[in-house]
Amino acid sequence: MSTDQPVTVEVGLGDRAYDILIGSGLLLRAGEEISRRLPGTRAAVVTDENVAAAHLDTLKAGLEKGGIQPTVITMPPGEKTKSFAHLEAVVDGILAARLERGDVVIALGGGVIGDLTGFAAGIVRRGMNFVQIPTSLLAQVDSSVGGKTGINSPRGKNLVGVFLQPKLVLADTEVLDTLPVREFRAGYAELAKYGLIDRPDLFAWLEANWEKVFAGGPERAQAIAEACRAKADVVARDEFETGDRALLNLGHTFGHALEAATQYDGARLVHGEGVAIGMALAHRFSSRLNLASPDDAARVEAHLSAVGLPWRMSDIPGDLPDAEALLAFITQDKKVSRGALTFILTRGVGQAFIAKDVPASEVLSFLRESHPVSRKAG
Amino acid sequence: MSTDQPVTVEVGLGDRAYDILIGSGLLLRAGEEISRRLPGTRAAVVTDENVAAAHLDTLKAGLEKGGIQPTVITMPPGEKTKSFAHLEAVVDGILAARLERGDVVIALGGGVIGDLTGFAAGIVRRGMNFVQIPTSLLAQVDSSVGGKTGINSPRGKNLVGVFLQPKLVLADTEVLDTLPVREFRAGYAELAKYGLIDRPDLFAWLEANWEKVFAGGPERAQAIAEACRAKADVVARDEFETGDRALLNLGHTFGHALEAATQYDGARLVHGEGVAIGMALAHRFSSRLNLASPDDAARVEAHLSAVGLPWRMSDIPGDLPDAEALLAFITQDKKVSRGALTFILTRGVGQAFIAKDVPASEVLSFLRESHPVSRKAG
Ligand SMILES: NC(=O)c1ccc[n+]([C@@H]2O[C@H](COP(=O)([O-])OP(=O)(O)OC[C@H]3O[C@@H](n4cnc5c(N)ncnc54)[C@H](O)[C@@H]3O)[C@@H](O)[C@H]2O)c1
Ligand SMILES: NC(=O)c1ccc[n+]([C@@H]2O[C@H](COP(=O)([O-])OP(=O)(O)OC[C@H]3O[C@@H](n4cnc5c(N)ncnc54)[C@H](O)[C@@H]3O)[C@@H](O)[C@H]2O)c1
Ligand SMILES: [Zn+2]
Ligand SMILES: [Zn+2]
Repeated sequence: MSTDQPVTVEVGLGDRAYDILIGSGLLLRAGEEISRRLPGTRAAVVTDENVAAAHLDTLKAGLEKGGIQPTVITMPPGEKTKSFAHLEAVVDGILAARLERGDVVIALGGGVIGDLTGFAAGIVRRGMNFVQIPTSLLAQVDSSVGGKTGINSPRGKNLVGVFLQPKLVLADTEVLDTLPVREFRAGYAELAKYGLIDRPDLFAWLEANWEKVFAGGPERAQAIAEACRAKADVVARDEFETGDRALLNLGHTFGHALEAATQYDGARLVHGEGVAIGMALAHRFSSRLNLASPDDAARVEAHLSAVGLPWRMSDIPGDLPDAEALLAFITQDKKVSRGALTFILTRGVGQAFIAKDVPASEVLSFLRESHPVSRKAG
Repeated sequence: MSTDQPVTVEVGLGDRAYDILIGSGLLLRAGEEISRRLPGTRAAVVTDENVAAAHLDTLKAGLEKGGIQPTVITMPPGEKTKSFAHLEAVVDGILAARLERGDVVIALGGGVIGDLTGFAAGIVRRGMNFVQIPTSLLAQVDSSVGGKTGINSPRGKNLVGVFLQPKLVLADTEVLDTLPVREFRAGYAELAKYGLIDRPDLFAWLEANWEKVFAGGPERAQAIAEACRAKADVVARDEFETGDRALLNLGHTFGHALEAATQYDGARLVHGEGVAIGMALAHRFSSRLNLASPDDAARVEAHLSAVGLPWRMSDIPGDLPDAEALLAFITQDKKVSRGALTFILTRGVGQAFIAKDVPASEVLSFLRESHPVSRKAG
């Protein structure tokens, strides 16, 4: 374990401002960092079975150093855990521990645990203190920052939740060493996303340095910190997603449709993989609409492919529903404003923008073209 | 139906400020009032079977005049509806109607429907627009104002929820004519509460005018408006209940314990009745602690008794658990701060205050004294 000083990224949200600490060995410093900010607090830790097996003992030791003996609530791993039933179980676990409003609920896990736990912390006693200890790359660069929490509904992903800013985020870069590489890659898609939205230099840096990010050198912490800064910037501009924050949905409209089309079956497609394919499609679609050069789309596809991410629909194992069915998943998506289709499109790498009133017919013919069946047939 | 101009009470909460309109015939003006504030909105109405039978058609006609054709979601009546299962059903009904974040969810009903619906509106898509149309006296003077929403947990009442300020409250005084008198009385307890907290003139006015408030003359609207002003004042001072707002819990610590002790069985005790007994007990307990004169306690008991409200434990039909068990319900109550008992006590009518560190032993011996069993025995 390294004793390097962590990098601090401040999320500037007035009286809801908080720090993100990024570095190695942070699990062992959790008690100190939390009790410094919330003196005398009691705590519940919510985690999943995989993460508990790898990191719970370390976190407990770290909390113990700050005088905190947490109640632990362990959920099954996987996207299906973001449900009303598991929300109710976490809420009950927190209440059973007799925690009060001033106590803290800690999420130790990936985006699933972070989203579920944040939602529970936001509604028990109408809002408790919340700390994120993200353990997947996706959670470190994306879901743990920004205050969106929630669960899925049978009618769509992330349709139910609250905004709740954490008091602190501890991104321990070392815990990523136990993350399956497929999950690491999926998180990498969200990291690359910030480059594609409005940081072309970051994207170019990643093209040159991605192998070091995967290997775990100082470049890993550097990349995560840069991603947190990028997300914190957008969130500070638009905390409640009434405008600009929608840019973070680059790749997500297509991505969510593909996740729905594969019944959220992680064996076929995990969220970040859907985002990777979605980003490639968003670039290709923008080029087809003559908004961006096809070279940019090709560059994005090449990089995703180099890191081993899926980038086209045919990279998904098994059959997909046809283009019409995929469009239906898209129009059910929450980013539909009064019936018109809203997409994040781009003028090139680092030049994404919010496009309202994208004609459904254009989307449909693009989906037909990009569909594996027509590709094979064509 | 009267065409009097409604009274407007403004709730001053900065960018979350909103109006409470109080008067007769407001259901028929709902469409106009809502579409003026939220042009082009679509709507879901959540109600219960009793209220739907008496008032849904009128509200639909009123919404229609504003061009709004709502989706209606009807729940069973009663406190048990404030549960995770019903929350999930309301959330699903709103999503099934394909409402978006800018659309509105309307609660038409008493406090149960208002609390449940507000919670659902607060979490669908992380927050939609919300309008309260309270139809019980309790909801008009209390639960519809202030932004607290929520459901019950098997571990206690109102332990799960969010703060969500409505965009508008329409308190139609005429709808109260169909309210069972027992429910009207229960709401009256919360109305009298504002007098007991810090408005001694209001309490004296109610002692003189309560029969007119029950009968439905202009005094009814006047009393409701005064109550809304009282609550709005406290809420504007302390929106998220970190201090003063706790004064509104006068009578509620004992009240909640009695509700729990009677298994929330409305046939034995409804919320406002529990509050009535709780207020009388809080005054008597304050007098026993030499904080207030016993004359004030007697005055409160006399008024509650005059309007036909229960005011002592022996007024509850059936057996109650013993004093020790009642105390256990109190210490489970969420108004326990780090193990110490917090009570709202009083120095006399209109002089309530927040008392921290009330010794549990004092509460216990007071409960023993006040308990029907020891009263009979003594
Ligand atoms: N709130 C937001 O703003 C936001 C943003 C993006 C994504 N999300 C959500 O995040 C979720 C995806 O997050 P995720 O990819 O982290 O999924 P996840 O939480 O399911 O984690 C992926 C897998 O990795 C395992 N895991 C996590 N950390 C580990 C570690 N250090 N060692 C070993 N195994 C580990 C988990 O048990 C799980 O099996 C989705 O539900 C998505 O909707 C939310
Ligand atoms: N959110 C808050 O700040 C707050 C404050 C106080 C109380 N509350 C909550 O409010 C609830 C109690 O509210 P309530 O007393 O209105 O209960 P309720 O909603 O159950 O209504 C009482 C009964 O009256 C019926 N009813 C309501 N309006 C009617 C009408 N106009 N005509 C005929 N029948 C009608 C209902 O169907 C129900 O049977 C409790 O759950 C309590 O926790 C919340
Ligand atoms: Zn994502
Ligand atoms: Zn009450």
